[in-house]
Amino acid sequence: MGQVAWKGLFLSLFDYKTEKYVIAKNKKVGILYRVVQLSILAYLVGWVFVVKKGYQDTDTSLQSSVITKMKGVAFTNTSELGERLWDVADYVIPPQVGVVLRAQRATEQGEEVAALCDLFCDVCAAGVKTGRCLKDRDSFRRTCEILAWCPVEKRSKPKKPLLASAENFTVYIKNSIRFPKFKFSKVNVLATDNESYLKSCRYSTEHPYCPIFLLGNIVRWAGSDFQEMALEGGVIGIQIEWNCDLDKAPSECNPHYSFSRLDNKFSEKSISSGYNFRFAKYYRDAEGVDYRTLIKAYGIRFDVMVNGKAGKFNIIPTIINIGSGLALMGAGAFFCDLVLLYLIKKSNFYRGKKYEEVK
Amino acid sequence: MGQVAWKGLFLSLFDYKTEKYVIAKNKKVGILYRVVQLSILAYLVGWVFVVKKGYQDTDTSLQSSVITKMKGVAFTNTSELGERLWDVADYVIPPQVGVVLRAQRATEQGEEVAALCDLFCDVCAAGVKTGRCLKDRDSFRRTCEILAWCPVEKRSKPKKPLLASAENFTVYIKNSIRFPKFKFSKVNVLATDNESYLKSCRYSTEHPYCPIFLLGNIVRWAGSDFQEMALEGGVIGIQIEWNCDLDKAPSECNPHYSFSRLDNKFSEKSISSGYNFRFAKYYRDAEGVDYRTLIKAYGIRFDVMVNGKAGKFNIIPTIINIGSGLALMGAGAFFCDLVLLYLIKKSNFYRGKKYEEVK
Amino acid sequence: MGQVAWKGLFLSLFDYKTEKYVIAKNKKVGILYRVVQLSILAYLVGWVFVVKKGYQDTDTSLQSSVITKMKGVAFTNTSELGERLWDVADYVIPPQVGVVLRAQRATEQGEEVAALCDLFCDVCAAGVKTGRCLKDRDSFRRTCEILAWCPVEKRSKPKKPLLASAENFTVYIKNSIRFPKFKFSKVNVLATDNESYLKSCRYSTEHPYCPIFLLGNIVRWAGSDFQEMALEGGVIGIQIEWNCDLDKAPSECNPHYSFSRLDNKFSEKSISSGYNFRFAKYYRDAEGVDYRTLIKAYGIRFDVMVNGKAGKFNIIPTIINIGSGLALMGAGAFFCDLVLLYLIKKSNFYRGKKYEEVK
Repeated sequence: MGQVAWKGLFLSLFDYKTEKYVIAKNKKVGILYRVVQLSILAYLVGWVFVVKKGYQDTDTSLQSSVITKMKGVAFTNTSELGERLWDVADYVIPPQVGVVLRAQRATEQGEEVAALCDLFCDVCAAGVKTGRCLKDRDSFRRTCEILAWCPVEKRSKPKKPLLASAENFTVYIKNSIRFPKFKFSKVNVLATDNESYLKSCRYSTEHPYCPIFLLGNIVRWAGSDFQEMALEGGVIGIQIEWNCDLDKAPSECNPHYSFSRLDNKFSEKSISSGYNFRFAKYYRDAEGVDYRTLIKAYGIRFDVMVNGKAGKFNIIPTIINIGSGLALMGAGAFFCDLVLLYLIKKSNFYRGKKYEEVK
Repeated sequence: MGQVAWKGLFLSLFDYKTEKYVIAKNKKVGILYRVVQLSILAYLVGWVFVVKKGYQDTDTSLQSSVITKMKGVAFTNTSELGERLWDVADYVIPPQVGVVLRAQRATEQGEEVAALCDLFCDVCAAGVKTGRCLKDRDSFRRTCEILAWCPVEKRSKPKKPLLASAENFTVYIKNSIRFPKFKFSKVNVLATDNESYLKSCRYSTEHPYCPIFLLGNIVRWAGSDFQEMALEGGVIGIQIEWNCDLDKAPSECNPHYSFSRLDNKFSEKSISSGYNFRFAKYYRDAEGVDYRTLIKAYGIRFDVMVNGKAGKFNIIPTIINIGSGLALMGAGAFFCDLVLLYLIKKSNFYRGKKYEEVK
Repeated sequence: MGQVAWKGLFLSLFDYKTEKYVIAKNKKVGILYRVVQLSILAYLVGWVFVVKKGYQDTDTSLQSSVITKMKGVAFTNTSELGERLWDVADYVIPPQVGVVLRAQRATEQGEEVAALCDLFCDVCAAGVKTGRCLKDRDSFRRTCEILAWCPVEKRSKPKKPLLASAENFTVYIKNSIRFPKFKFSKVNVLATDNESYLKSCRYSTEHPYCPIFLLGNIVRWAGSDFQEMALEGGVIGIQIEWNCDLDKAPSECNPHYSFSRLDNKFSEKSISSGYNFRFAKYYRDAEGVDYRTLIKAYGIRFDVMVNGKAGKFNIIPTIINIGSGLALMGAGAFFCDLVLLYLIKKSNFYRGKKYEEVK
């Protein structure tokens, strides 16, 4: 490359070079091209920008903190437990996890007493086999001796819900969220000085910023029957969704609640239906011997799951979407060129005009 | 389309076709175009690539595991509880959640004794109404009999913090993270053999890889006063942010801590201010009658929230950003064309040259 | 701009304008251009669309709910605790967090009795110094009086694992996930009516939808030795990964498990190795004096971490990727132009043909 080339290159830097176009006075292809252009424009403006907000940068990884608290008192009278009164300290185990104790069977148990149990029955699983074989005095069946807390827990399912009146208990769910990318925070509690409102309100679609939920409502919204669920317990998923358009006012960024039952996805009788767990209270008698009360608790557990998406105008996705739209226009022109040069009558003529042959 | 057309199409496959340009020796439009080009280039290189790292693929969904442990002992002497010593087993309830018990009122209660209570007062909420009406012997007010754990808990707010000395307690927070997309893991604990460092250090900006925090510091960094917070409890959000550029050395990927108070977002007196919960210890006396100690605990709860973003070079976003920049150049040329063809004096002349009319 | 210009602008709306090309019959540059085009096409189709599924919109922020339950019974005989039987209610503390108690040392303690302790030793940290100085009667060392729960806990490490037989305990882990963007849900439990399968199965690669894990297997898969871990406890991370291509059948969206140890990242002796916590059981004797049993529990904690990625066809990323590919083609043409116009012999000739000079 000689000096002349370099000089030409430099001089031509500030000449404006514009592509030469051939005007094909073919209205069919012309209209086709306009239709293609308008379609792409409509897609770009209508779908990408208006519907999908392609001019926004999005953040889906939100920080969330959930505080729950339950309220309510119930009175029960059962043969197993006698008359009992239940308040928050009794039915929420452990205090912070948001669990409601619904039904319970208690068994007073001493430590490590040998128990008799059928060799082939499943119940033996709750103890450790000593290896000794025993004969049942009454029948002629042979059984294995096991070590277990005695008496062994009865494997009966609860007949009626213990805390049927828990339908009117309330759950307070406070959820603070933050979108770290946009440094935007919000809480699902009304910013009010009216203390009595936040004590007496109940959540409904009319009161979206009241964080107090009736237990019965939650279960109903999750599509379950409270009395049926009260029998065997269950897990309720409370999904809080924050879809926020941060180009609008912060007051337009609202939580949406949805409730679903998580434990009985498939069949009523499957292992995954219902919710229960065992725990024990430990006592010591006057002689210093430990014993415990084993409790099988049927409860309603709440899983509060928070997710969200925030969008805010950002130049980079805007340009990417405009750019890809423009590139698409180029593809549209390429398609119309194909029509012009190969599919219409006078295509030979246009081909000669578009492509200027040089020797 | 005849055979000739197909033949021409095939033969021309290896001809190089290049767009024909018209050189408009108009320095104004030429300079305008260069300015547009340079602006787009500056935006692309400076903003998209250098500042926003548009050449990187990002991952914001990190896996995180947090282990916490508290240490500290305090001694209290109150009229309600007498002299008491508090160590970890006493003030962390339940053991794993990272909760500090701060103040507590205990009420010894027997089971289900009928209690008298004003019909219209709120306190009755803690019991179940039996439906019987009673007359108060001393006054002439009528009251309803309720079933409740007796005596009913006193509704007084704590006067002074119980564990004021908890300011010197320490919290150990270990956080392991993993970005699954890039298979990158890191821990917020210094990788050292020096065991005594990890036992004696305290977190500060000089010691970012020491995972032991002074309780008093956490509260101060969250913008609260410890003694004020000790009275009614509270919830502290500990945000750990990992912003990692994985094109650099792993040692440049560091956690950043920020502390905020989550319970009193709006007003001091609102329902959402402070943090307390009730739990009970159950005892059985010599006659086998159950009774309980109801404890209202005012505590500090920690919510450790981890989020992060990792970026690493990836060809696809790089090409997308370059491509959208190039498409933008096309838009710039289109804009300069408009100027050349319709806005300058000799535009008619240039229009004729750019668009070659064919019959 | 006159009326004529406007009229021309309008009339020409439906003329099809197509770029004029110059055919350079230079096979070298022609082939170079085809190679560039094919490379870009191969990258776009092969890498972006087939391998990276660039036609899909992805969602990495999934909602997840985890329910765990443990099963198993063990019998121990130690000098500290005597003969004891352990079932779920005894070794899972608190009931919901999925913690296995592995080894434990119990200390019966009365409240706030003065204890003697060496001034310089670390053990004093468990009490509050009264400020009084005492002389040890037997030796001549001086010590400080401290207030503490007495007797002070012995600082010995456990010699042998208490629940060595826990290797055969089972953990039931149910994980429901939901990708909110695509409204797609799935559970890691086989959708079967066969109740006995879900009771007797054990997870393995052959049974990916059996949610019951053997404790020993989990520890082995995490790369640890169970008996060694049983001594000092540990934290096991259970990662469940859902990588779902929602353009395929839902049955192709399967969970992948991986297990890792989270507590001993760096060295065996560091502060972060092992897992233990202290808790207390409270008793009251006949005279109404409280005392407690302090338990230091060495346990295995499970951290179930769920992450996932779902992809589904979406027009916007498809167009963005095609668009950026097309823009790249333009860049390829620009590069070939440079070769044609400045790097080959006849470049001067082609330059004159490509750029039509106007006065």
